[in-house]
Amino acid sequence: MDSADLLDLLGNANRRRILQLLAHKPCYVTEISEYLGVSPKAVIDHLEKLEAAGLVESRVDEKRRKYFHIARNLRLEVNVSPYEFGTKSAYPASAVDVTTCRYVSIETAVTDGDDGDADTTELARQLDRLQDLETELSMAQRWVHGRLTEVMEALTEQLAGEDSRLLSDVLSALAAGSGTVDELSRRVEAPPEVVAEALHRLAEEGVVVHDGDEWRLPD
Amino acid sequence: MDSADLLDLLGNANRRRILQLLAHKPCYVTEISEYLGVSPKAVIDHLEKLEAAGLVESRVDEKRRKYFHIARNLRLEVNVSPYEFGTKSAYPASAVDVTTCRYVSIETAVTDGDDGDADTTELARQLDRLQDLETELSMAQRWVHGRLTEVMEALTEQLAGEDSRLLSDVLSALAAGSGTVDELSRRVEAPPEVVAEALHRLAEEGVVVHDGDEWRLPD
Repeated sequence: MDSADLLDLLGNANRRRILQLLAHKPCYVTEISEYLGVSPKAVIDHLEKLEAAGLVESRVDEKRRKYFHIARNLRLEVNVSPYEFGTKSAYPASAVDVTTCRYVSIETAVTDGDDGDADTTELARQLDRLQDLETELSMAQRWVHGRLTEVMEALTEQLAGEDSRLLSDVLSALAAGSGTVDELSRRVEAPPEVVAEALHRLAEEGVVVHDGDEWRLPD
Repeated sequence: MDSADLLDLLGNANRRRILQLLAHKPCYVTEISEYLGVSPKAVIDHLEKLEAAGLVESRVDEKRRKYFHIARNLRLEVNVSPYEFGTKSAYPASAVDVTTCRYVSIETAVTDGDDGDADTTELARQLDRLQDLETELSMAQRWVHGRLTEVMEALTEQLAGEDSRLLSDVLSALAAGSGTVDELSRRVEAPPEVVAEALHRLAEEGVVVHDGDEWRLPD
């Protein structure tokens, strides 16, 4: 899927809301329809477009209910400036991970922000280096994006059981910063009592700790 | 402008084509309409939407012709994975440049791709570090994007004259990699004879060199 197709898909607010929901948990049509306040017919139409693009897949559970989930791992970057309108979409390839250190420790000689007296040749060289830097940073982010997904997968697997997804989400929310039950509840969009129970279960396993009301990952 | 508004705007192929055109050079309505094969009325409608969002601006030249150009410098990033649907848009702030080295030389301890025997606590920590890394890379990219625009501006200024924009575009295309006149002509979307003349003028100033048919920036 190229950037144009992806932008066409993401240019619709309801499709974005469906993806937000599915990133949270796999859902069936009625669920999505009720959550969005949109007719099942419209939801099916959006899901068909997302499926056709390979962004979403479905599987049928033992009760013969069809669940949809996000199938793809991808990143889109758009740059807009008076001199540029560039779009780039890419799939994170874990195959690039061996070389990652190279991307992140790239030359930063271009970082002196002063071009007051740079001549044209020097500016052209800076342009060259900045374009390389942009490419390398983009590669590094593709790698990070791929690794994040792998770690989330591994977490979900380790926290096996019915609510492994919720536990992983709570951990992911904590990874973004410590917080109280109420704050974490807003971050994972789940009721406070559910989040509180998840935190206590994770604390029993030593995966999270708390200082008073503040929950965090152990140091 | 938030990511949702930006995605709504970019979800339209003709608006994307208008932005592509304006990134190349400021244009007036009839020009855009002819280039796109779209009615002037439709072009005006798209331009109004882009102007309302602050993405595009216009100015009137001495012949009272209204030229449109891209007004904003911004970046949009979208991450899609089974666990995430995240969009982020940001304006590159040159104010962050002093701290840039920090972002680019970030800790890469997370880069061992092997979580075969990582326990839950270790995975949660990796998640934390990866999220930090993602944020820092994103900041570094905003900075690069801002610097690229500044360098293009400085170049356009130095190559003063009627076709300074074309000369800058040719330099930018060369910065992305050496090439023959025909290749560069495709990259900047200008006729080969125009590009050849630009290259010879740049060569006179020592800004570009060539080995046979291959043009490049000097080492």
